[in-house]
Amino acid sequence: MTGAAPVKPQTAPSASPASPATLDPVALAAELIRAPSVTPHAADALELVARWLKAGGYRVERLTFETGGVPIANLYARIGETGPNLCFAGHVDVVPEGDAAQWHHAPFAGTVENGVLHGRGAVDMKGAVAAFLSAALAFGRPAKGSLSFLITGDEEGPALDGTVKVVEWLKERGEVIDHCLLGEPTNPDALGDAFKVGRRGSLSGVLTVKGVQGHVAYPHLADNPIPRLLKLIGELTAAPLDHGSDFFPPSNLEVVSVDVGNPVFNLIPAQATARFNVRFNDHFSLATLKSEIIRRIDGAGLTYDLEFQTGASQSFLTAPGPFTELVAGAVEEVTGRRPVPSTSGGTSDARFIKDICPVVEFGLVGRTMHKVDEATPVADIQALTAIYGRIIIRYFATFA
Amino acid sequence: MTGAAPVKPQTAPSASPASPATLDPVALAAELIRAPSVTPHAADALELVARWLKAGGYRVERLTFETGGVPIANLYARIGETGPNLCFAGHVDVVPEGDAAQWHHAPFAGTVENGVLHGRGAVDMKGAVAAFLSAALAFGRPAKGSLSFLITGDEEGPALDGTVKVVEWLKERGEVIDHCLLGEPTNPDALGDAFKVGRRGSLSGVLTVKGVQGHVAYPHLADNPIPRLLKLIGELTAAPLDHGSDFFPPSNLEVVSVDVGNPVFNLIPAQATARFNVRFNDHFSLATLKSEIIRRIDGAGLTYDLEFQTGASQSFLTAPGPFTELVAGAVEEVTGRRPVPSTSGGTSDARFIKDICPVVEFGLVGRTMHKVDEATPVADIQALTAIYGRIIIRYFATFA
Ligand SMILES: [Zn+2]
Ligand SMILES: [Zn+2]
Repeated sequence: MTGAAPVKPQTAPSASPASPATLDPVALAAELIRAPSVTPHAADALELVARWLKAGGYRVERLTFETGGVPIANLYARIGETGPNLCFAGHVDVVPEGDAAQWHHAPFAGTVENGVLHGRGAVDMKGAVAAFLSAALAFGRPAKGSLSFLITGDEEGPALDGTVKVVEWLKERGEVIDHCLLGEPTNPDALGDAFKVGRRGSLSGVLTVKGVQGHVAYPHLADNPIPRLLKLIGELTAAPLDHGSDFFPPSNLEVVSVDVGNPVFNLIPAQATARFNVRFNDHFSLATLKSEIIRRIDGAGLTYDLEFQTGASQSFLTAPGPFTELVAGAVEEVTGRRPVPSTSGGTSDARFIKDICPVVEFGLVGRTMHKVDEATPVADIQALTAIYGRIIIRYFATFA
Repeated sequence: MTGAAPVKPQTAPSASPASPATLDPVALAAELIRAPSVTPHAADALELVARWLKAGGYRVERLTFETGGVPIANLYARIGETGPNLCFAGHVDVVPEGDAAQWHHAPFAGTVENGVLHGRGAVDMKGAVAAFLSAALAFGRPAKGSLSFLITGDEEGPALDGTVKVVEWLKERGEVIDHCLLGEPTNPDALGDAFKVGRRGSLSGVLTVKGVQGHVAYPHLADNPIPRLLKLIGELTAAPLDHGSDFFPPSNLEVVSVDVGNPVFNLIPAQATARFNVRFNDHFSLATLKSEIIRRIDGAGLTYDLEFQTGASQSFLTAPGPFTELVAGAVEEVTGRRPVPSTSGGTSDARFIKDICPVVEFGLVGRTMHKVDEATPVADIQALTAIYGRIIIRYFATFA
């Protein structure tokens, strides 16, 4: 336990102040919400972050990538010259507001009412970006080591020109990040519930069986692909893939669609297709999972086409150690609760960052993310700012 | 065996002659093909039939029904006042030609080349209508009993305003038909292969399972309907419905479509649907088949929606006896081959006629029906005319 005082958050939303040391995380979050940044149009929100970081003494690199056909704005910013380098990673792009008429507060107004900040991105994850900004700028320049930010505008979209490209750029440049804290919402119900020390991998596939079309009254002249597809699905899903591991829940395969598209009753169709997705743990690599899927399907002894989709990712785990311990300890110090190390849920940009350094995720409460009326208590942003402040202090106390 | 001479068919196509006694079946068939009559627009072809029957001394009733929104022309014609009444049933409507450019002869030209008559309807079933017309008009008025025609323009379509309505009209009017011969193509490969003494019933259903949509990374918050639908399909198809009966092949259930329509991999869908059709034999009535389907699905102990479609039909069988024997004998007499009594294949308008009298089906070779380049050897039309002539002669020798 280090003895530095927790960061004191400001409570009244205000315009961007001149002095970084007084940056109120709630005001920053509200201002970020007011810069609508639905993927891929996140440049304005990123510009705010860049301005605040520059004012705080950071060297800011603007990184625009365009392999997906649309220019995507990202940034990498650092204060300090030496290691260890603690990086905060996050995104300022948000998912669309959906039906704006269903919102009880305008989705891009950043309204604070009764102690709650409303708006798209409040929890995922402009609130967390604002909290870390506030904590880091209050901390200032580390006496030894560096603080850095990796902020992307392409997390909620195809993720082709975001973190994955910034990580490539960092590697090419020889830029070393020693540890990374990703600010995704990790708490199911209340701040302090959980932090993520890993994520399952994801693999999708399309399974197609071909047959011979024909009239239903003459099945011997046709060859219905549906029973064979259902047999293959049966083999694929007959047994659990595994029963979980020390840090992961069981791998799970979901058949998400089965489609034939035959509009009539008197024709046997020529083709049937199933689509599936697997969320898998550290029992499998992508390669061994593909082998297992093929082994299971081949067990039926039938002819099929199987196509694995692009965008697959391996699972990853940041093993328990000083870094996970300092994050959990900081959360406990502020909230009074020990967060559970979790590996559940969907993928995140941690799948790219884990290639360059250990990564742990902690952010706000995710309940309203991607939904109408996304919102967070102001107190959660303030507490998260305090937690991030404790993490920064503990980090340099531990690793510098 | 009666001793009357077989009908002598004419071989050269010609225009409609003035004297019914000389009507050449190939010329009639070609002229019917030249009156394009894709369902529901069969009035012109029916007009030709009406004209020929009137010239042959038949009382012709034109019957137009329109419950399906389009007027459908049908006719019932009779010669003779007393029983027994042998009715020839058939249709002059045809399925569309499809891609006319793929035909080697224009689909509505009625071309005869190298002893083959080409065109839409050649085998299904203008050729058979022409053959029975030629045979019946050559036979003339029965000394005792009646000959009649039930010709519809709505067999290949929804069949709402065709035979089913004419049969109602006959019943209302007290018109008695004692036996019916339906001219559908019944021979798989060569004239004389088979005649139909029954048809399986047909029942279609839609099976739907509802679930709860959700993200694939949080399957515990969702409820995937696909595994449950596949389980229901498994129960439905686990065992054969039966193993056939004396006169019928086994009942057969085909799942013709399974549909979810989920375009993405990361969502568990809210609903999954299967469509199926059963062709069933005399082990089942419609009611007992529905019960058996529900019993099987209920075996899974799951919640589902099941909707049976309209247009279902029971199986029917014309038991072996003097009528089936005289038809088979006439076929054997002309072709030298004993036709197999068959109950295979799709439904036909016999499903409506069986309610008023025993019905047997015999016609041309079905191989090209509903296909591009539908065609029949001229010799088959001539032989079919001879067979129909023998049936008429045997009929009045047996029943009058
Ligand atoms: Zn996010
Ligand atoms: Zn037909």
